[in-house]
Amino acid sequence: MYKGNAFMVAALEEAMKAGQNDEVPVGAVITYNGAIISQSHNLVRKNMDPTAHAEVLCIRAASQKLSSYYLDECDIYVTLEPCAMCAQAIAFSKIKRLYFGAYDEKFGAIENGVRLFNAPISNHKPEIYGGIEQEKTTEIIQTFFSNKRGRAGILL
Amino acid sequence: MYKGNAFMVAALEEAMKAGQNDEVPVGAVITYNGAIISQSHNLVRKNMDPTAHAEVLCIRAASQKLSSYYLDECDIYVTLEPCAMCAQAIAFSKIKRLYFGAYDEKFGAIENGVRLFNAPISNHKPEIYGGIEQEKTTEIIQTFFSNKRGRAGILL
Repeated sequence: MYKGNAFMVAALEEAMKAGQNDEVPVGAVITYNGAIISQSHNLVRKNMDPTAHAEVLCIRAASQKLSSYYLDECDIYVTLEPCAMCAQAIAFSKIKRLYFGAYDEKFGAIENGVRLFNAPISNHKPEIYGGIEQEKTTEIIQTFFSNKRGRAGILL
Repeated sequence: MYKGNAFMVAALEEAMKAGQNDEVPVGAVITYNGAIISQSHNLVRKNMDPTAHAEVLCIRAASQKLSSYYLDECDIYVTLEPCAMCAQAIAFSKIKRLYFGAYDEKFGAIENGVRLFNAPISNHKPEIYGGIEQEKTTEIIQTFFSNKRGRAGILL
């Protein structure tokens, strides 16, 4: 049951931190029992790690906090439709609900691309809610790439 | 150009280390200029991290070693067909060649499942060689799951 946009706003604040540091502005939070237990943003450049997406970092932190590789009582809020890497990480961690903001035609793997959770072999399918705070979550990513246009070094 | 199975044997040694510690026995190595620059194995349980697959750990270490999130002059050798999480991580890191051992009908995402690199939006497609040292790489994973049968706590 979606109880409001406060957690997506917190994810947006994480996304803004990423953008301020010239990282692709994507943020995420994981909640448990109605409270945030981990929050992070894209840190590919800072961590020099192509796997350092907001969702992966959040899942890792939440698993350590709960001492469990299964997060089946947790929800994740992410400002951008997860890519296949993050979607499979969500499947492995058995996160209960996935809320995401902007749709991503290029790398999204939920409603775009390989649509991972529609695949017959997906070991876990969370409840999925897309388009949360869609206007703001779309604006932050579009603005970032508009400003980048014509510059080298764009990466996700 | 595939120059022999020595790197896959090194990946198999990593897989065996994982199995000895009750981790799913998958190992990987990344090579650069004909030498191994990172090697790791599944550490989901030990690291309490559902994303701690051999490939992710190898990519992270190699990126830090080369101070680059692009590993476009590197090859990866992994004992099991990568899952969607690892396949997308390989795409993001632009690894040049992917060599894998056993095929994985359950979680594999190269020749099985979502076949990530066949998707029209894949941003990078490595050269792909499957079935390297297939007998040994298949045996190690099958033996592990045969021994597990009937026991709880199986995870990948």
